Amino acid sequence: MIPPDHPRYRSLMTRERLAAAARDGVLAMEGLTAHGRGEAFDYLIGERTTGSALLAERTAAALLLSARHPVISVNGNTAALAAPEIAALQKASGAIVEVNLFHRTEERVRLIEELLTRAGVEVFSGTAERLLPLSHDRAWCRRDGMYAADVILVPLEDGDRCEALVKMNKTVIAIDLNPLSRTARAASITIVDELTRAVPEIARACRELDVGERERLVSRLDNHYLLAEAIREITLRLRACSG
Amino acid sequence: MIPPDHPRYRSLMTRERLAAAARDGVLAMEGLTAHGRGEAFDYLIGERTTGSALLAERTAAALLLSARHPVISVNGNTAALAAPEIAALQKASGAIVEVNLFHRTEERVRLIEELLTRAGVEVFSGTAERLLPLSHDRAWCRRDGMYAADVILVPLEDGDRCEALVKMNKTVIAIDLNPLSRTARAASITIVDELTRAVPEIARACRELDVGERERLVSRLDNHYLLAEAIREITLRLRACSG
Repeated sequence: MIPPDHPRYRSLMTRERLAAAARDGVLAMEGLTAHGRGEAFDYLIGERTTGSALLAERTAAALLLSARHPVISVNGNTAALAAPEIAALQKASGAIVEVNLFHRTEERVRLIEELLTRAGVEVFSGTAERLLPLSHDRAWCRRDGMYAADVILVPLEDGDRCEALVKMNKTVIAIDLNPLSRTARAASITIVDELTRAVPEIARACRELDVGERERLVSRLDNHYLLAEAIREITLRLRACSG
Repeated sequence: MIPPDHPRYRSLMTRERLAAAARDGVLAMEGLTAHGRGEAFDYLIGERTTGSALLAERTAAALLLSARHPVISVNGNTAALAAPEIAALQKASGAIVEVNLFHRTEERVRLIEELLTRAGVEVFSGTAERLLPLSHDRAWCRRDGMYAADVILVPLEDGDRCEALVKMNKTVIAIDLNPLSRTARAASITIVDELTRAVPEIARACRELDVGERERLVSRLDNHYLLAEAIREITLRLRACSG
């Protein structure tokens, strides 16, 4: 029982939620480790949405709204952490939601699709084929879903898949707390923020942005700047801690 | 199922090894998340032993060799990651190896002691008592083991236990990749390095150091300097990546 006034209440509750998801089979064990990795980077950016992350979130919304065929790719961690937030983003953006797993089994796909559906997501679940230029199970996706996407939101993505999607000329929006990761560097735009803070901000911007703002945000997109700003935030915090 | 051509193959394989240890009951679920946090900091120091970490490792060896009653405390993560390395360090240092768990059950203690024994460790496994000034299961240790130690190596330790051991006037050697953690700040000396790199370096130094070098290293121990250097390494790497 974690007391609600604990300074790290939110973070500790999230950890418990993920441990439960792992026991239920929604999350791969490896997903717990990946989450820990994210926690450390979140700690370093101060567990808050920075100014540059908010700009990235608003630009991501503009990209989704301007897309012909926007897709949100959901894995086990994303489903366990943010199923209702994904449902709200789907409503605000009109994007297709498709389950894609690194540690793929038919059973896990089914469990995650059920979890998303219960949270109000309309899940795109046609027949999956090996369509991405990747080895093993990461190649699976659906012809009319991710494969056809022009803009794709990949929260918590593996670097290889992110690079493969970019090479297929898709605009890839990553959510990744590590601004140095291959995913962060390969993506068209990287949101360096924690998932449950980031997704509602993207949804809010989807509801708010007018056409002029959308176009302005998309035309000024500069991922190098966004990543440099995230790194600068971490450096400032480290300096404060070591002083 | 991780493709061997994946650029982060080693890190991902380690993650799989830990996931297997969690399924076997050696590792608590929380141990997987803790490992992920360590991964992030290892990434930030460049997944290598820095100059200041090597100095810390040599000083740790000097402390173990100069001790009257040196003890190595082993938890689930340490056993899953580095059982053979702990066996080699025991041989080089003459230290007692004792299992101490944060998420303690008799079954997990037994599993970990078996795992260590198979790896060649001589496990100190007398009757445990509640001897440390801590609530709950973390208080357990053995009167002629950790309780009597003057120098104790605690890889991957919890902050509360580290502080309690320091208050008992023990010289505490921590291995912790996060130079900002309470453990890192409370310990007598903190090795900011990854476990499977750190333990063999300590063992190597145990075999190499002569008495003069030992005394020189111990007299010059300055943990504030070691932590500041670790933070500086991270900052430099972040700056290089953002440049």
